[in-house]
Amino acid sequence: MSDTSIPASGKGNQHLSPKSDIEISQAASMRPIVDVAREKLGIPAEHVLPYGHYKAKISLDYLSSLQDRPDGKLILVTAITPTPAGEGKTTTTVGLGDALNHIGKKAIMCLREPSLGPCFGVKGGAAGGGYAQVVPMEDINLHFTGDFHAIGAANNLLSALIDNHVYWGNSLGIDPRRISWRRAVDMNDRSLRSIVSSLGGVANGFPREDGFDITVASEVMAIFCLATSLEDLQRRLGDIIVAQTRDKKNIRASELKAQGSMAALLKDAIAPNLVQTLENNPAFIHGGPFANIAHGCNSVIATKAALKLADYVVTEAGFGADLGAEKFFDIKCRKAGIKPDVTVIVATIRALKMHGGVAKDDLKVENVAALEKGFANLKRHIANVQKFGVPVIVSVNRFSTDTQAEIELLQKLSEAEGVDCVLADHWGSGGPGAAELAHKVVSTIEAKPSQFKPLYADDLPLVEKVRTIARELYGASDIALDPSVKTRFAELEKEGFGHLPVCIAKTQYSFSTDANAKGAPSGHVIPVRELRLSAGAEFVVVVCGDIMTMPGLPKVPAANNIEVGADGRIAGLF
Amino acid sequence: MSDTSIPASGKGNQHLSPKSDIEISQAASMRPIVDVAREKLGIPAEHVLPYGHYKAKISLDYLSSLQDRPDGKLILVTAITPTPAGEGKTTTTVGLGDALNHIGKKAIMCLREPSLGPCFGVKGGAAGGGYAQVVPMEDINLHFTGDFHAIGAANNLLSALIDNHVYWGNSLGIDPRRISWRRAVDMNDRSLRSIVSSLGGVANGFPREDGFDITVASEVMAIFCLATSLEDLQRRLGDIIVAQTRDKKNIRASELKAQGSMAALLKDAIAPNLVQTLENNPAFIHGGPFANIAHGCNSVIATKAALKLADYVVTEAGFGADLGAEKFFDIKCRKAGIKPDVTVIVATIRALKMHGGVAKDDLKVENVAALEKGFANLKRHIANVQKFGVPVIVSVNRFSTDTQAEIELLQKLSEAEGVDCVLADHWGSGGPGAAELAHKVVSTIEAKPSQFKPLYADDLPLVEKVRTIARELYGASDIALDPSVKTRFAELEKEGFGHLPVCIAKTQYSFSTDANAKGAPSGHVIPVRELRLSAGAEFVVVVCGDIMTMPGLPKVPAANNIEVGADGRIAGLF
Repeated sequence: MSDTSIPASGKGNQHLSPKSDIEISQAASMRPIVDVAREKLGIPAEHVLPYGHYKAKISLDYLSSLQDRPDGKLILVTAITPTPAGEGKTTTTVGLGDALNHIGKKAIMCLREPSLGPCFGVKGGAAGGGYAQVVPMEDINLHFTGDFHAIGAANNLLSALIDNHVYWGNSLGIDPRRISWRRAVDMNDRSLRSIVSSLGGVANGFPREDGFDITVASEVMAIFCLATSLEDLQRRLGDIIVAQTRDKKNIRASELKAQGSMAALLKDAIAPNLVQTLENNPAFIHGGPFANIAHGCNSVIATKAALKLADYVVTEAGFGADLGAEKFFDIKCRKAGIKPDVTVIVATIRALKMHGGVAKDDLKVENVAALEKGFANLKRHIANVQKFGVPVIVSVNRFSTDTQAEIELLQKLSEAEGVDCVLADHWGSGGPGAAELAHKVVSTIEAKPSQFKPLYADDLPLVEKVRTIARELYGASDIALDPSVKTRFAELEKEGFGHLPVCIAKTQYSFSTDANAKGAPSGHVIPVRELRLSAGAEFVVVVCGDIMTMPGLPKVPAANNIEVGADGRIAGLF
Repeated sequence: MSDTSIPASGKGNQHLSPKSDIEISQAASMRPIVDVAREKLGIPAEHVLPYGHYKAKISLDYLSSLQDRPDGKLILVTAITPTPAGEGKTTTTVGLGDALNHIGKKAIMCLREPSLGPCFGVKGGAAGGGYAQVVPMEDINLHFTGDFHAIGAANNLLSALIDNHVYWGNSLGIDPRRISWRRAVDMNDRSLRSIVSSLGGVANGFPREDGFDITVASEVMAIFCLATSLEDLQRRLGDIIVAQTRDKKNIRASELKAQGSMAALLKDAIAPNLVQTLENNPAFIHGGPFANIAHGCNSVIATKAALKLADYVVTEAGFGADLGAEKFFDIKCRKAGIKPDVTVIVATIRALKMHGGVAKDDLKVENVAALEKGFANLKRHIANVQKFGVPVIVSVNRFSTDTQAEIELLQKLSEAEGVDCVLADHWGSGGPGAAELAHKVVSTIEAKPSQFKPLYADDLPLVEKVRTIARELYGASDIALDPSVKTRFAELEKEGFGHLPVCIAKTQYSFSTDANAKGAPSGHVIPVRELRLSAGAEFVVVVCGDIMTMPGLPKVPAANNIEVGADGRIAGLF
């Protein structure tokens, strides 16, 4: 979920800073967020709801008042298929936003909120890196403005209402074996993946199998990110299907009268959060759904607000472009009626060499042949994005081990695809390091108007939507369906869900379902294992492999090294 | 946990307002909290960390800078033994604070934060009532500034670290049967009281019995409320005993290196929250531990800060004086080194008549004999508080059904005990309605210096501490111990915990362990069923009856009626 920042290995960058991310962050010269809002975005102070001096929510009433303004330009930052070498998607999003401001444009970033759980697992934050960060970084990575806690509470209130309904007589006839709604906690906790609840006798209810997902994997999170207003949020919450009866009739949250109190829990959270970059430029950070069981983009409300507030909006989507950009286009843009103007695909020479077969330990050695071979991965992502009618720019995060021959080859190969390839060093130099990228983004938007259209039509049957994605984007020969999956497709069509977009849950490490198949595999078959209906989020999750909804902690969790000094400063986090 | 506000029946008050609590609250004329902090308490704006415009945290650095100031006067508001007729302890705390300001004194209130879970169960908030409320009431009753979510996250991080330790080899030799640390969620959810976790195979850990408490019942909450600084908090978190080995060696959170990351999660929460009353007077609302498994008082940090910031500090403790005031004196004041100057015992004539044997439906009828009989309850509470050397005032929340004869009798009976008895109507009239009470508080503090001392010495053996409380305060002839409890007392003494205070968990509805024994029973025996060591909070919980650590929802939960309008206003909450 958290993208690996560029210097995953902690070394190798051309402009290597001697400082860690948290050191750079803590040394930041932050401005009061009320001033950032007023000076950079023209938002009057009374509409800025501060959370301390450096975080704020912007009131929905104010944002509604901007409806008649024209929209700014929307820039999606996505990436090649991720490898352990690291790409730096969030860092590029922040760096490009700073760079656009640096060259005199009015730009804002729209990022996803990081999940709390992973902070205590493998060391690493999700607020950019180096000199391209959003701050205050500790706050953003911990509770921030409480949105995720609100989402978790709404999720768990619904759970409590389900079991409470069964306890008090079960007039809706819920089949306890068919309760699909799971509980949520914002923690990496494998022990809660699978539990039996309501043990201990009559007073505690009817024992049943249950489990917890991490909060980001909750459908409430996906709904939160797709809702266009508080009313739309409340309606979608009511539409959630929580269980079935013995004769497989769907039970919705609205039948438990849950949506009003869930919305009450979310009414403050739904307003977007404003923070600043190290260069005091504005950034919305709002919502952060899993990129497998959900669509992995920040909230529609934040993105739409940003388009009214700035001339350029830089946003990101989870995982590589096959998953993240596809869902951004086919789910978020389709449903929210927004139109991306250009897409930046982030790559590193190191990662492309891994796609070309080089082992991680050998990445420092020049290997032009491997780069050429690995370019197949980038090439397919370029072609995929172009299928949506959106112009593409390649941005390369430079490492000091990149050789001149490698750089020239990558630029030549990109140009052969009709795409500009720009070197960027925002990690080491902040906004000025990505100025060339910013200029290229502006000139591309001016020169090549986007012809955005989703990949498939709403009225294509669900199974054909999946087949289209598999063939057109993944290079697969076809999809494979178990009989039970075929039946479920038919059921969903019959129940009136055929018009929904599909949300593919698949390994992010390959175009195929085999995480080891790097580069650009083709001719493979994509097995569909399961369908999960997210009736409130309004998509159908198509599970094509393992789907992780509750991570675990590693043997030596990062939590072991975190301390708070007497001065209130956190040490050991990131 | 949430005290019932006066008009529990929704009618009967002398100055009956046609408006509900939430209507009064939403019509409040709130001032920016930054202005309240500056004008009423002299706190400079840079030390006020706002959460929206009407809630704020006050920075610990600023509070530390006040150490050399003299302390204000400390007023505890407690109550007779609660009945379904309602007493109005929180309402009196707010009303008295407003009244002190009304008569020209510099006063601040210290209240407990309400728990989120009960909001969705039985209708009723915990922010005062009528014209004696703290606002913004919806915020205070929902997420407020996120303290409880932070406490829940710290609790659950420790849980995850325990199971993770076992999963990765269990080098500490934790016996999974002897893990006493439970998970927490801020929701009324009976289904989570007793669970089996880690099902589903090798990747999910070792199955074991587990369960969830509501967040307010977590030892982290008790620690949060007793800690005197961030350092003290971190130390206490490390001292938590989470489990035992097979040979019954205690395992502490510090052995899992958990305390630093738990403290990191709590570093913002530990700063006290400032809000205002309907009359724009300042109130700290910070911490809210269960009054059975913990001590049921707001945080020491808030109380100590309040004593530096104002001349009069009005605070409350959970349940009746036998439980709440005793724990306030013997745990909070003893440990924090603070000294109460006067105690206000809240009573209603209705409730005293119930203690005298009148059924709830007959309370409107004058019954002088029942009142005289029921006065025994108040009389014992008066005597109990006086045993701590603290002067007492009785405050009577008036209802329109109270007759002149009843009022005169109550005043006569109180005066016979050497105690002033004041009628108060802050519920209907705000601060001016409790002006007489405020004057009485001020004159009592001036006339009768408090000779506060705890009931028992630190070095009394644990079992004798329990016996002293039972005999001296509860009117019991003795305590009764099972052999297993005797053994546990001996173990705790041997392990070096004999110097800790005891925290009695007992029904709040009687001086005995029989909830139906109203009035002032005596000669009964208090059976001790179980001891639970809270080594981080630094007390020993003595369970003398059922102990509720996870409530359930009622058949028709309040959640069913809550809605959010398009304007973002919540309807149906309270």
